[in-house]
Amino acid sequence: MIQHLGLQLPAYERGYHVITPQILQRLGDIPQNGLLHVYIQHTSAALCINESADPDVLTDFESFFNYIVPENMQFLTHTIEGPDDMPAHIKAAMLGSSISLPIIDHQLALGTWQGIYLCEFRNHARPRSLILTIYA
Amino acid sequence: MIQHLGLQLPAYERGYHVITPQILQRLGDIPQNGLLHVYIQHTSAALCINESADPDVLTDFESFFNYIVPENMQFLTHTIEGPDDMPAHIKAAMLGSSISLPIIDHQLALGTWQGIYLCEFRNHARPRSLILTIYA
Amino acid sequence: MIQHLGLQLPAYERGYHVITPQILQRLGDIPQNGLLHVYIQHTSAALCINESADPDVLTDFESFFNYIVPENMQFLTHTIEGPDDMPAHIKAAMLGSSISLPIIDHQLALGTWQGIYLCEFRNHARPRSLILTIYA
Repeated sequence: MIQHLGLQLPAYERGYHVITPQILQRLGDIPQNGLLHVYIQHTSAALCINESADPDVLTDFESFFNYIVPENMQFLTHTIEGPDDMPAHIKAAMLGSSISLPIIDHQLALGTWQGIYLCEFRNHARPRSLILTIYA
Repeated sequence: MIQHLGLQLPAYERGYHVITPQILQRLGDIPQNGLLHVYIQHTSAALCINESADPDVLTDFESFFNYIVPENMQFLTHTIEGPDDMPAHIKAAMLGSSISLPIIDHQLALGTWQGIYLCEFRNHARPRSLILTIYA
Repeated sequence: MIQHLGLQLPAYERGYHVITPQILQRLGDIPQNGLLHVYIQHTSAALCINESADPDVLTDFESFFNYIVPENMQFLTHTIEGPDDMPAHIKAAMLGSSISLPIIDHQLALGTWQGIYLCEFRNHARPRSLILTIYA
């Protein structure tokens, strides 16, 4: 059984956001056994799994990736959509456009401290389209 | 249903290349509903999903990852295969050896601007072996 | 058929470790055709697929990621668990919390030089919980 569910997220501020609750709400009843795949249909935002307990982790992610992928690097040429656009593509490639994790006993098999992040890299982002796929 | 299809890519130049057309051609008829997994059997090339409209994005990727993972860093010791080899392994780990995305209505569920990249990190690359796996 | 197998790894030293043998041992008989997904339930360690032949590659990975994600960066605020903790989260996000690869003819379809890495980022790590999921 393969089932797809669209999840339209509203525009989030630039930064890292734990969206595990939004995903669980969209999933509703979770099958006993399977795998969840989450895909983002955009190239200037990403998904990853990381620490969900301390909000300082989220702001440190924003600080670090801005430090390592700064805006206005002289060698970048894809600049027509603004200085935050090409860095957003690079960050999206580094973090990835999908995550997947096991479903066991009707639960996502997240570790104790793990949550699913939406990583929003644009200053003036639009709503983002995700596809949740369940195999069971 | 799980089906594997090998895809042998010819040697590409060092850089980032949109290979969505080659993947679609190899897939032929796509099932109505499922997921596509693409795997690269190499450690100095990678796969990712990113912007496929403006070719400047591809050259900016090459410039950025050369900047962040330069050749001839003093602390690297795995140098027998040339100065581009260990940076290639590092870039491959940062970008990843597989991508996966939903199949909906007989189509890959790529966003409007998304394409699948072959990221070739070697100066004198050989052909690359990919495995396309469809679950349906 | 979806089957989950837990794999509890003992505490490894900080660094990069090829764990393909441990995974193969836990899997036992591998089905003829399918896909393997490996998931790590932690946010300061990661999984990736890379070169498994030369141990110098493993130490070069440790050197490079320490160089690019150093400890004690002034702008980091999540510091209560020690200077190696927030860099560990960042490295985990860059490398990822899961890998997946095809199963063909009762074998993992690893390329000639590929192995599965446990990437341990903490100085005093604990045992790590992995979940191996086979679809067949």
